[in-house]
Amino acid sequence: MDLTRALAAFVVHSRLENIPPPVRHEAKRALVNWMACALGGAHHEAIGTALKALAPFSGPAQSQIVGRLERLDCLHAALINGMSAHVLDFDDTHAGTLLHPSVPVVSSLLALAERKTLSGADFLHALILGAEVECRVANVLCGAHNETGYITGTAGVLGAAVAVGYACGLDERQMTWALGAAATQGAGLREMAGTMCKSFVHGRAAQNGMLAALLAARNFTSSQCAIEAPRGLIAILAPGAGVEAAIAGLGECYELMRNTYKPHACGVVCHPAIDGCIELRARHGVAVTQVRSVALRVHPLALKLTGIRAPRSGLESKWSIYHSAAVALCDGVAGEAQYTDLRVHDGEISRVRECVAAEADAALRDDEAHVAITLADGRRLEAHVTHALGSVDNPMSDRQLDAKFHQLAGETFNVERRDRLLRACWAVEELAGAAEIARLAAAPASM
Amino acid sequence: MDLTRALAAFVVHSRLENIPPPVRHEAKRALVNWMACALGGAHHEAIGTALKALAPFSGPAQSQIVGRLERLDCLHAALINGMSAHVLDFDDTHAGTLLHPSVPVVSSLLALAERKTLSGADFLHALILGAEVECRVANVLCGAHNETGYITGTAGVLGAAVAVGYACGLDERQMTWALGAAATQGAGLREMAGTMCKSFVHGRAAQNGMLAALLAARNFTSSQCAIEAPRGLIAILAPGAGVEAAIAGLGECYELMRNTYKPHACGVVCHPAIDGCIELRARHGVAVTQVRSVALRVHPLALKLTGIRAPRSGLESKWSIYHSAAVALCDGVAGEAQYTDLRVHDGEISRVRECVAAEADAALRDDEAHVAITLADGRRLEAHVTHALGSVDNPMSDRQLDAKFHQLAGETFNVERRDRLLRACWAVEELAGAAEIARLAAAPASM
Repeated sequence: MDLTRALAAFVVHSRLENIPPPVRHEAKRALVNWMACALGGAHHEAIGTALKALAPFSGPAQSQIVGRLERLDCLHAALINGMSAHVLDFDDTHAGTLLHPSVPVVSSLLALAERKTLSGADFLHALILGAEVECRVANVLCGAHNETGYITGTAGVLGAAVAVGYACGLDERQMTWALGAAATQGAGLREMAGTMCKSFVHGRAAQNGMLAALLAARNFTSSQCAIEAPRGLIAILAPGAGVEAAIAGLGECYELMRNTYKPHACGVVCHPAIDGCIELRARHGVAVTQVRSVALRVHPLALKLTGIRAPRSGLESKWSIYHSAAVALCDGVAGEAQYTDLRVHDGEISRVRECVAAEADAALRDDEAHVAITLADGRRLEAHVTHALGSVDNPMSDRQLDAKFHQLAGETFNVERRDRLLRACWAVEELAGAAEIARLAAAPASM
Repeated sequence: MDLTRALAAFVVHSRLENIPPPVRHEAKRALVNWMACALGGAHHEAIGTALKALAPFSGPAQSQIVGRLERLDCLHAALINGMSAHVLDFDDTHAGTLLHPSVPVVSSLLALAERKTLSGADFLHALILGAEVECRVANVLCGAHNETGYITGTAGVLGAAVAVGYACGLDERQMTWALGAAATQGAGLREMAGTMCKSFVHGRAAQNGMLAALLAARNFTSSQCAIEAPRGLIAILAPGAGVEAAIAGLGECYELMRNTYKPHACGVVCHPAIDGCIELRARHGVAVTQVRSVALRVHPLALKLTGIRAPRSGLESKWSIYHSAAVALCDGVAGEAQYTDLRVHDGEISRVRECVAAEADAALRDDEAHVAITLADGRRLEAHVTHALGSVDNPMSDRQLDAKFHQLAGETFNVERRDRLLRACWAVEELAGAAEIARLAAAPASM
């Protein structure tokens, strides 16, 4: 099957009015969540360090760095904004593949919007198309590839290429070239977990996909079947995988409808366990000093991906189901403030963390968990989370996304400015120029 | 085994005076050959197209584009010069792995030399170390990975990181981070063969490895075992491969001693067949019109990698053993001029190309070939090439490299300027600043 060409043709011939309103609404939710995360992450140490390293090589000040004062050339802006959007591990997740759809797509599109006139409707359309293609290719790659690679780095780069390519008006052939130039840059090792390079992998998906589209727009040639060819992307990362999953129902059902948003600031696979801990704490008024042991029963992936027993830093703690359960019991939330070096080394949290045991149960769904707490007085409290908050079957509401936005944007903007930016995101489809969103996302000069 | 740390420690503690003179001399040969190829490729369509696409995003004019007038920021210069050095498929090849050692290493170092003071001796030392690490990792990856991936994209990126990292004075820990940031960018699909994206993959190895080192120099953290970790580079690209080959004899024998240079402007695997055709043409004064059939017996890789039966363009013809045999018989050489659209569509060459049959013989070495020509008068001429010119066992001489340089630089520079640049390359170890080479490689303004 000519998968690359089929995807390119779908993108080039897509019309926004044919895309169902719920999909368009989901794209706005993705944008709001992206903006929340990017603002929350914009002052993370990894971002400052990357900016210091890269600023000397930046081109003209074309595009805004979200939540900061800096402006860089649009390729570097895509990188840094992509890193900001991912660095807190608070970004959206495509159910089933674990791809973070908005990081490559929104980061590159927002940077482009200041370089080239782009209506809000075209921005939204490009976002949907980029997410569609990257998620569909991720459906093929995911399986075993997810154990070693970051699928946002390997499939997400295609999303950025498609989004920017659509926004730049590429024809069908150029779109296959953009996909080719993106596919040949697909990269990212899970070994980067817990280091600054994890956000780098994700930001690069935005930057590299954008680069691919900008090259294709100049007729820089590539393969026209880079995804499915015998020496192509699938062959190298998921040899033997069938391509059908990438094409089934194309244009009828949209992958964004399987997009999810995190209420907690850590690896999504440990969210059900966090929900269970928060529930027990609230239901029974558990005093942390009384906790003697915590037994988690979770999907195997939760231990595989968030199995760090004794995290040494805030960054590492986001990949520790043990730390996550501990902060949920101690603080009743698992927000950004719970994943700092300070909280990792806090005496009480450390004590509770050491009381947590986790067991994999392949019979559970990945949004399901059992939590059992034994207290000093011998009482045993149990919770069964059937669908974690933020999962496909128990999504965060629009208002919960607004609250997340206000929480993460709170250090950058006052409430009036936050409201303006939030309104612009929800109203993106009506904006004459999507660049307005980028302008509103600049940190106030007085910061 | 802590492979990443072992390689970092080796690099950081290396001393030029402990590196045997033949290795240092080989590094100079690699530099001369790189410069020849980069000058020859600098005006290729792929380079012009990439420059047009990327110039709007370039930072300050820090580094020279070899053989041209443009100056870009050093990261973009590393990319473009790497593309120029590879685009003719005339660059060096590490025997056994098919990695092109100089493209990532020299392209990044030369760009850096104008950004930061770098003595010729340090340049040479960094070149040797970068080549050493990339080739050693390639020794581990090569096998099956070579069938789908470009090893210069996946292992070569480490070479650029090491070379630039060494030149920037990274400490041991920073060097592991540079290797980590490079490893997580390792990418490149063989599917790009015959398109502009092939040179892009190779240039990106230079640019991305350099980026990794510049990030590490600012303490941008990464894994310290990204190459060998269970979710690292080897695990994703060559699962199960043993790491011993990357460490055996480290610091005692140097991989540059297995570096080879191409006398012919096409895929190295078809060179023995070309040598046989040239030999028969010269020995017997074969008139092309008399050629009725040509039978090649070659190593299986020759058919796998250069098996394009009916090339449609000059670029594709470099991957056609059939075209290569035809031009060798018609023109007596297989230089850049033989791989143009014009020659591909030439009537006589097309006729001879169609007379060529090729058969794989697993009993042959990859630098070996049998050629048999049947003439119109029934005569059968045979040649057996035991070691192709440019192979480890039949290397090009320094003077042959000089001739290749003069041939490829001829369109850019007059003979006096060519001599100056060539002398500077051979004398790199004595130069106060390696930047002199970059300055001498700028096209004359009158071009």
